[in-house]
Amino acid sequence: MGIIVLGSYLSPYTLRVLIELEELGVDYELKLVNLKQGEHRTPEFLKMQPFGQVPVLQDGELTLFESRAITRYLAEKFDGQGTPLLGKSMKEKALVNQWVEVESQNYDRPLISIVEQVVWTPSWGKTTNEEIVAAEMAKLEKVLDIYEVQLTNHKYLAGDFFSLADLGHLPGTHLLVNIGKKGAIFAARPHLNAWWEDISSRPSFKKIMAKTS
Amino acid sequence: MGIIVLGSYLSPYTLRVLIELEELGVDYELKLVNLKQGEHRTPEFLKMQPFGQVPVLQDGELTLFESRAITRYLAEKFDGQGTPLLGKSMKEKALVNQWVEVESQNYDRPLISIVEQVVWTPSWGKTTNEEIVAAEMAKLEKVLDIYEVQLTNHKYLAGDFFSLADLGHLPGTHLLVNIGKKGAIFAARPHLNAWWEDISSRPSFKKIMAKTS
Ligand SMILES: N[C@@H](CCC(=O)N[C@@H](CS)C(=O)NCC(=O)O)C(=O)O
Ligand SMILES: N[C@@H](CCC(=O)N[C@@H](CS)C(=O)NCC(=O)O)C(=O)O
Repeated sequence: MGIIVLGSYLSPYTLRVLIELEELGVDYELKLVNLKQGEHRTPEFLKMQPFGQVPVLQDGELTLFESRAITRYLAEKFDGQGTPLLGKSMKEKALVNQWVEVESQNYDRPLISIVEQVVWTPSWGKTTNEEIVAAEMAKLEKVLDIYEVQLTNHKYLAGDFFSLADLGHLPGTHLLVNIGKKGAIFAARPHLNAWWEDISSRPSFKKIMAKTS
Repeated sequence: MGIIVLGSYLSPYTLRVLIELEELGVDYELKLVNLKQGEHRTPEFLKMQPFGQVPVLQDGELTLFESRAITRYLAEKFDGQGTPLLGKSMKEKALVNQWVEVESQNYDRPLISIVEQVVWTPSWGKTTNEEIVAAEMAKLEKVLDIYEVQLTNHKYLAGDFFSLADLGHLPGTHLLVNIGKKGAIFAARPHLNAWWEDISSRPSFKKIMAKTS
């Protein structure tokens, strides 16, 4: 039995797992969960994921949820296969973890609030709340200023190697920059912009993105 | 050179690191950062932690921030010493990570909003916003219902062993239940309540809490 991902192409947290599986060169089966039809709220789904969210990973006896726990598990399980994503030394590993946490705590929150307003709200036929957008853009720009400094000193977030920390930024940033057309805040910061051009050129990302459109 | 923690007894994220160091039986030096006097916003501090937050860990050449990255680093570095916190098998480790993420994504957010209103706001001489409290309590109770099911089936969150996942809940829950007096939502859920009684009886927690009061 191989790796099974339950998820949706609409979910950046699902896409993060799929991009990683491409980087690792691991075969998997994607079982689509139709969020619009509420398939994530059925009793069978809630037995696997009590919070009713995608993605969920199945690997034999193991059922695992929370995308950052899934990506860590896969990177450790398939360590030595495909792209190394965790860092080599204890220090590198610690810094990868640190920037995975920064993504989770500081980057993702304002980003998802903006994406909700400029991408998802219009797609549901509702009106964007521009006040929320402005407030969250201001928060995100402060975070991006810190990224700009880090990426001036290092090619990638955790150092001079691509890692899980960079990878985790791909699907959300794609929604913000490419779909939500908020790329100006990236273009204004040269090292951040170069990083984004670099990581968004990876074949893993392009391959998965081609499936979403 | 040993382990140095820069932080504050007012910060649940600092306390989580200190409790872990007690569990591991590791000696450390705590350098207090006076948040009220803005010591976390000085240029020297921002060089270590650009977001201006505590805790920060120093271990020789390594400077590390984000409490969940710090606790993972310490648990891995001192693996085999003191309480095992990460799980043994790959499956156990994955489930520990999952519940660490649940704490981060689902538990901590409503909890901190409530603590801000019922503990910190009054301490600054401001008025609690009861609407926010009610809304966040409703969110947290949904999460606690899921915990109650998990803790009916297992003694601890990730299985039948105490882990980093349980430990991470201690300081925030202390603020909510013991300082903010919102323990009724725990008392109403017997297995959750038994878990809280259990983990909050640990000597590591009691020792650190004695220093905060
Ligand atoms: N923290 C979770 C977030 C997952 C999440 O928010 N998934 C969304 C899709 S992007 C979902 O399933 N939403 C359905 C719902 O919450 O009702 C993770 O990283 O896996
Ligand atoms: N995600 C961070 C949160 C740290 C945090 O919020 N620290 C607070 C104290 S509880 C702080 O330093 N606040 C000062 C500020 O944000 O200005 C972690 O887990 O370490």
